[in-house]
Amino acid sequence: MKSSQEGAAPTGRGDGRKRQEILAAATERFGRDGYEHTKWADIAGDVGVGPTALYHYFESKQHCLYEIMCEAIEEFRARFVKITADERDPARALTAVMANSFELTEHEVQRNRVLVAEQGRLSRPSTAQPEEDARQVARARTRDLEFAWASFLESAMRAGAIPQSDSRLLTLAVLGLYSSIWHWYRPTGIVSLTHIGEYFTQLALAMVGVSPDGLESERSAA
Amino acid sequence: MKSSQEGAAPTGRGDGRKRQEILAAATERFGRDGYEHTKWADIAGDVGVGPTALYHYFESKQHCLYEIMCEAIEEFRARFVKITADERDPARALTAVMANSFELTEHEVQRNRVLVAEQGRLSRPSTAQPEEDARQVARARTRDLEFAWASFLESAMRAGAIPQSDSRLLTLAVLGLYSSIWHWYRPTGIVSLTHIGEYFTQLALAMVGVSPDGLESERSAA
Repeated sequence: MKSSQEGAAPTGRGDGRKRQEILAAATERFGRDGYEHTKWADIAGDVGVGPTALYHYFESKQHCLYEIMCEAIEEFRARFVKITADERDPARALTAVMANSFELTEHEVQRNRVLVAEQGRLSRPSTAQPEEDARQVARARTRDLEFAWASFLESAMRAGAIPQSDSRLLTLAVLGLYSSIWHWYRPTGIVSLTHIGEYFTQLALAMVGVSPDGLESERSAA
Repeated sequence: MKSSQEGAAPTGRGDGRKRQEILAAATERFGRDGYEHTKWADIAGDVGVGPTALYHYFESKQHCLYEIMCEAIEEFRARFVKITADERDPARALTAVMANSFELTEHEVQRNRVLVAEQGRLSRPSTAQPEEDARQVARARTRDLEFAWASFLESAMRAGAIPQSDSRLLTLAVLGLYSSIWHWYRPTGIVSLTHIGEYFTQLALAMVGVSPDGLESERSAA
């Protein structure tokens, strides 16, 4: 897999596998050592290329970070859309979305930690074009995710499954509560992710206003 | 107020008023331009001293940031302790704490934004001693705040005012929900802080398990 820095030029940014390897290595480094403390050259070393070769795939460390964020947000949105399309009952769909949000590989946990730790960087424009383009995409995908959630909550409100309220603020609250976990969660901690997932799912349902009784009767009827 | 860089030496770090001025100026800069993009010299300019004079008060920009965080967390804890000591009824105390958390000056809003944007920096040890000391103090105060909240929630659970559950996770959830607001709130936005405060107070009460009916009857009985 090791390719020399001066070796055959990669096939541009379309060389998907190496690009994915770089994204994965960068996610691990950013999550473990922090974005600021990670050297671009270390990521190159992790995937067996020279630092110069890395520039065939990304313009900069920042560009790479934004691409990681884009991918994370987009996957999160796609999972949400799939689950809410498959399950028409709003209360059960919400429970399924929340439960699914904690079915994560170690790599996905690391990516969530990077996403919340560095989210502030998305609010500051970048002067370099590829970075700025990636930043704009990450922001647009965040808006898409929030829009999908707000639309779902609105239809649940219309169906009478949850109380009427401000769907945009409720979206920000649910996503904010979920995001907050990755500020303190450590895979080596004493509380398991399964336990945290069950607990925070109940809290999110309480915030949204799904009554546990309603869910119980749904379950017994099924 | 302007003192020359080469002028009379300030009375060390005990010169409280200038120190507070610097903390206030730094908070505005960090909140508006971001910590990374703020130059130490600009803060010096804001308070009318030379960059060298700034070092009479803080070892570095990072030291200054940690002191801002210490102060913010400590004030937040002190407000919590005062309110929960004054109001013995758990449900009303919780409502009062939440409402109070949104009674903020513009400067306090800015400080909250800095606190949540840069909180990740508290998890990485610093090699310089004064920074590291301030970081440890900020972390200890965070633990004190979390401990005060968890103790309060536990006594509310014992009193039967809220359902039994994991007081530490519930603390992290309530503080996480509150913190999340400062990631997206902008004073220039269309939604007022009063509206956000009322909405998020209701969400926090729902998470904790305070029944609105319980509060209503408390109110009518009062």
